[in-house]
Amino acid sequence: MKVTFKSWDQRYKSPFGAIQANTEVTWSVKVEEEIQEVTLWLTKVNEDAVAYPLSYNSDTEMYETSVKIGSSGLYYYYFNVKQNDQYYFLQRSQDGFGDGEITQDNTDLRTFQLTCYDRTVPQAPWYTQGVVYQIFPDRFNNGNPNGEITGRKKDSFIYATKKDSPYYIKDERGDIARWDFFGGNLEGIRQKIPYLKQLGVTAIYLNPIFLASSNHRYDTQDFLQIDPMLGTEEDFKKLVHDLHQNKIALILDGVFNHVGADSKYFLEAINDKNSKYFSWFNFIHYPDKYQSWWGVTTLPEVNKHNKDYQDFICGPKGVLAKWTRMHVDGWRLDVADELPMQMLREIRERLQNEDCHVLIGEVWEDASHKFVNSEFRTYMAGDNLTGTMNYPIRNFIIDLLQAKNEEDELSALNDLEKLVENYPKAFLENCMNNIGTHDTPRIKTVLGGDEDLVSLAFGLLFSVPGVPCVYYGDEAGLEGDKDPDNRRYFPWGEESQLLERKVARLASLRKQNPALVNGKVGFVKIVFGINALVRYNKKEVVVYCYNKTDQDVILDAGEFQTYCLPEEIAELVSDILDQESLLKKSDMHKTFLIAKK
Amino acid sequence: MKVTFKSWDQRYKSPFGAIQANTEVTWSVKVEEEIQEVTLWLTKVNEDAVAYPLSYNSDTEMYETSVKIGSSGLYYYYFNVKQNDQYYFLQRSQDGFGDGEITQDNTDLRTFQLTCYDRTVPQAPWYTQGVVYQIFPDRFNNGNPNGEITGRKKDSFIYATKKDSPYYIKDERGDIARWDFFGGNLEGIRQKIPYLKQLGVTAIYLNPIFLASSNHRYDTQDFLQIDPMLGTEEDFKKLVHDLHQNKIALILDGVFNHVGADSKYFLEAINDKNSKYFSWFNFIHYPDKYQSWWGVTTLPEVNKHNKDYQDFICGPKGVLAKWTRMHVDGWRLDVADELPMQMLREIRERLQNEDCHVLIGEVWEDASHKFVNSEFRTYMAGDNLTGTMNYPIRNFIIDLLQAKNEEDELSALNDLEKLVENYPKAFLENCMNNIGTHDTPRIKTVLGGDEDLVSLAFGLLFSVPGVPCVYYGDEAGLEGDKDPDNRRYFPWGEESQLLERKVARLASLRKQNPALVNGKVGFVKIVFGINALVRYNKKEVVVYCYNKTDQDVILDAGEFQTYCLPEEIAELVSDILDQESLLKKSDMHKTFLIAKK
Repeated sequence: MKVTFKSWDQRYKSPFGAIQANTEVTWSVKVEEEIQEVTLWLTKVNEDAVAYPLSYNSDTEMYETSVKIGSSGLYYYYFNVKQNDQYYFLQRSQDGFGDGEITQDNTDLRTFQLTCYDRTVPQAPWYTQGVVYQIFPDRFNNGNPNGEITGRKKDSFIYATKKDSPYYIKDERGDIARWDFFGGNLEGIRQKIPYLKQLGVTAIYLNPIFLASSNHRYDTQDFLQIDPMLGTEEDFKKLVHDLHQNKIALILDGVFNHVGADSKYFLEAINDKNSKYFSWFNFIHYPDKYQSWWGVTTLPEVNKHNKDYQDFICGPKGVLAKWTRMHVDGWRLDVADELPMQMLREIRERLQNEDCHVLIGEVWEDASHKFVNSEFRTYMAGDNLTGTMNYPIRNFIIDLLQAKNEEDELSALNDLEKLVENYPKAFLENCMNNIGTHDTPRIKTVLGGDEDLVSLAFGLLFSVPGVPCVYYGDEAGLEGDKDPDNRRYFPWGEESQLLERKVARLASLRKQNPALVNGKVGFVKIVFGINALVRYNKKEVVVYCYNKTDQDVILDAGEFQTYCLPEEIAELVSDILDQESLLKKSDMHKTFLIAKK
Repeated sequence: MKVTFKSWDQRYKSPFGAIQANTEVTWSVKVEEEIQEVTLWLTKVNEDAVAYPLSYNSDTEMYETSVKIGSSGLYYYYFNVKQNDQYYFLQRSQDGFGDGEITQDNTDLRTFQLTCYDRTVPQAPWYTQGVVYQIFPDRFNNGNPNGEITGRKKDSFIYATKKDSPYYIKDERGDIARWDFFGGNLEGIRQKIPYLKQLGVTAIYLNPIFLASSNHRYDTQDFLQIDPMLGTEEDFKKLVHDLHQNKIALILDGVFNHVGADSKYFLEAINDKNSKYFSWFNFIHYPDKYQSWWGVTTLPEVNKHNKDYQDFICGPKGVLAKWTRMHVDGWRLDVADELPMQMLREIRERLQNEDCHVLIGEVWEDASHKFVNSEFRTYMAGDNLTGTMNYPIRNFIIDLLQAKNEEDELSALNDLEKLVENYPKAFLENCMNNIGTHDTPRIKTVLGGDEDLVSLAFGLLFSVPGVPCVYYGDEAGLEGDKDPDNRRYFPWGEESQLLERKVARLASLRKQNPALVNGKVGFVKIVFGINALVRYNKKEVVVYCYNKTDQDVILDAGEFQTYCLPEEIAELVSDILDQESLLKKSDMHKTFLIAKK
């Protein structure tokens, strides 16, 4: 049946992508056969499906309907086409970039998603237009004279050399017996500000820095104290001051789902039932059995609905207030999925009151349709997170570079298209994108140690919507498999020049070309191993074309196909690619092709 | 049957104890009944028993025989008494200090031992008359500015604080995954010479100091190189020089039974069958299966019969020559039991050529009758070891202090008597006695943390024949269970004043009273918890009387019993104890009672 619908194309669905509540959405379906009717079936999550018949518009020669979407939330839709008293279903085709396809089988339909949000999230320019650098504080740099390590924790170990491989010291039961430290600290970060500047970094995101037993410090002992191994509160202030002097912002890691079993909060709770901390925790059997993060008994989970606890974190004299008033510019929220939505809103409100507008949640999947314990997480609403850690972007980049054939590549590109369509534009542009974090194997290791491929991965990271976040050392060519190997010490003096230069150049391109920040997204499929991402706004078109084959390739006009691009942009991209006839494998810098309109 | 024999008493056996080859020994048995005959049955190990009839001497009213013992070795004997055509056997009584007892059952007779040696071992005065201090180099003191640690080994760990509890970092299979270091070094020892001097130390014994992977360094990588974590060869020379300036000698640990699997010797052997090191090892299946110490594959055992290896160790340009020529004063031999006797003789000869006369073997049992793989070890011969690490002394001291009743006490004292009788006097006086080493739980921990008891243990250690060796930190009140807990870092600044003062006083008593070095040995049994050791020579009698009860005790004349003491000494001891009527629990210093003859 000749029926056409393209969710990415405003001729078929307008406006594009996610919408704000109370926006009228127009759907148009082109049918080039005799049919009886076309119906839009629109379902809001947890509500019944509603049918909207489409009517034929002889001007456009399309079937159309317009619906005002009144309330924010997650919607799914598909179309129903009746022909010869038979029902056909128009679903999202597998890897078709939002193209519809007709099926007769309505079991497990691939529906289209419509995200509806309440508010547009704010975009702090230093962040949204910037480049973030993630630092795992124990592993970046030690700034003390002679590399001395202060605040050493009793019964812990220090790596003998900075080149040691990270290792978990476990007892016979497999539990951590002693924590292991390299001894990086805040002063060490401060001393590397020139390095960060020349890399083009505009913000650093630090893994937790408050007092804790472990090297990762996700087991907070005291939310109000800098870990003395990292330095003093004075060191912290000095770091913030110097960062800001150098136009680098600071994002901290807020770990509010659980605390350390050796925290004063938990210790007081288990020692005294009358303690105010008692109600912070969920005891299954007092005091020895309690709810904990993933059953890890060293990480008792906090009862986050507890008003007193929320006040401790979000109140005007709370944890967030204290540090944000010391000029922290943004927060990343650990285990955002486990915090009540209401608490996320409280956190956002507190930060807004403190003039802080960056709140990034740790969410591993497409956050526009995330359910936790069967409950829909309204991350996109606009009143809680301002962005997420965008692991789907990492998946996209790795999938694309590891694709075995053109289908794999199309599938990866299609995944990216979905994100672009599902996320509110401002939200997506606020996401903290990565190709690796402290929780994943390092990109160089994933890509088999091939720095050319890593270079392409960085190119892709800087080409997609969202804020590129470089995991410390990735730009230095550091390798490392999964945790703890992905937390090696930064290889000062032995960095990859290729990658450092690449990142610096990408950061500079991002600064000079706003389309890389706010541009819409399209795709170009050339031949296997060679594809392009297109970002365009009213003023410019940027094409990031990568070549992962081991050959220079001559781009012949017309030998490529574009997706999700309006005609005039598609033509412009063709012109650009035609001009740039030779795509060298080694000549990475040429792969950014920019045209001002 | 009224038959008397006392092996410790020269009226019954003369000379006392072990004898040199070609010495005539006279045995006398007193029989106060009508009998037919008395026969001495003397057996040399691996030879047939020989019967010597005793003849009645009407002057002494004893049955007597004299036998010239022609060859060195281990002998056992008992007597056979015939009365009314019935045979009776005179064996060593259970805990009777060498007293004989009659039995009719000759299965499992408790025979008397006669040790016969070839040569008297030399006694280096600095050693035999001295006080040794054992240092586990990684755990004593770091002498670098700011406690810096040089020569760090890749993929090893440094303890975060000096108060950390030692911990073995093992993988899932239970093998060491990473080695752990505190970072003590040679310069640190050198800086503590004043401390050692005030303690009265005249020699230090260092656990291995040559290049190795582990913190104990028994897995030698290179016998000819100081481990760079401990310092340079210059540091070593400086240490030796300063020790000697302060009249402190140096004993090194020779580990010649096995090497590290990562030693250049073994690596070359497994990489090249034509290597000269190939024949150093016993390959069961080349190159992956080989003989190793206790099956520990990281410690391949050396084929010690290999001439080339022996030459490497004992030759004029070998390992021993190199270090001894740098003024090492003595050697302790690790796993002496596993080295061929012939190699021990080679080692001794080499050392003698280098004017070094202290060679202490690691032997855990009574070394006078040690068998390894059914072969008698001729340690007492006088041509190999000059002494052993005397673990039986540690057993004696702990048994005595932990005795639950008088029988336990007698049994412990009797064990000491056996050692005195079995070992050649010069050899026993050369033994390196201990109440704890790097291979045992610490004395304070064994004694339940009671420093008064530890103080008594030191008193006993300094009262028995042999050289007292203080395991670093025991004098500081350091605790620690078995390896690795017994290898904590020295608690500088938090030492037990009680114990340090005690050891210093004991060292001074030993220096002032030669009977503590060369005196013969006797015992006094007073009441449960109170006993005395007697050391006497021609000029003085020293009585070490300990009181482990929690009360002051009045010593009443005649309420005690002496053992193994000639009459005139026994009388002197009685006089001394009578004079010293009050034995205070707390007044440890009074427990040494000395009379010049």
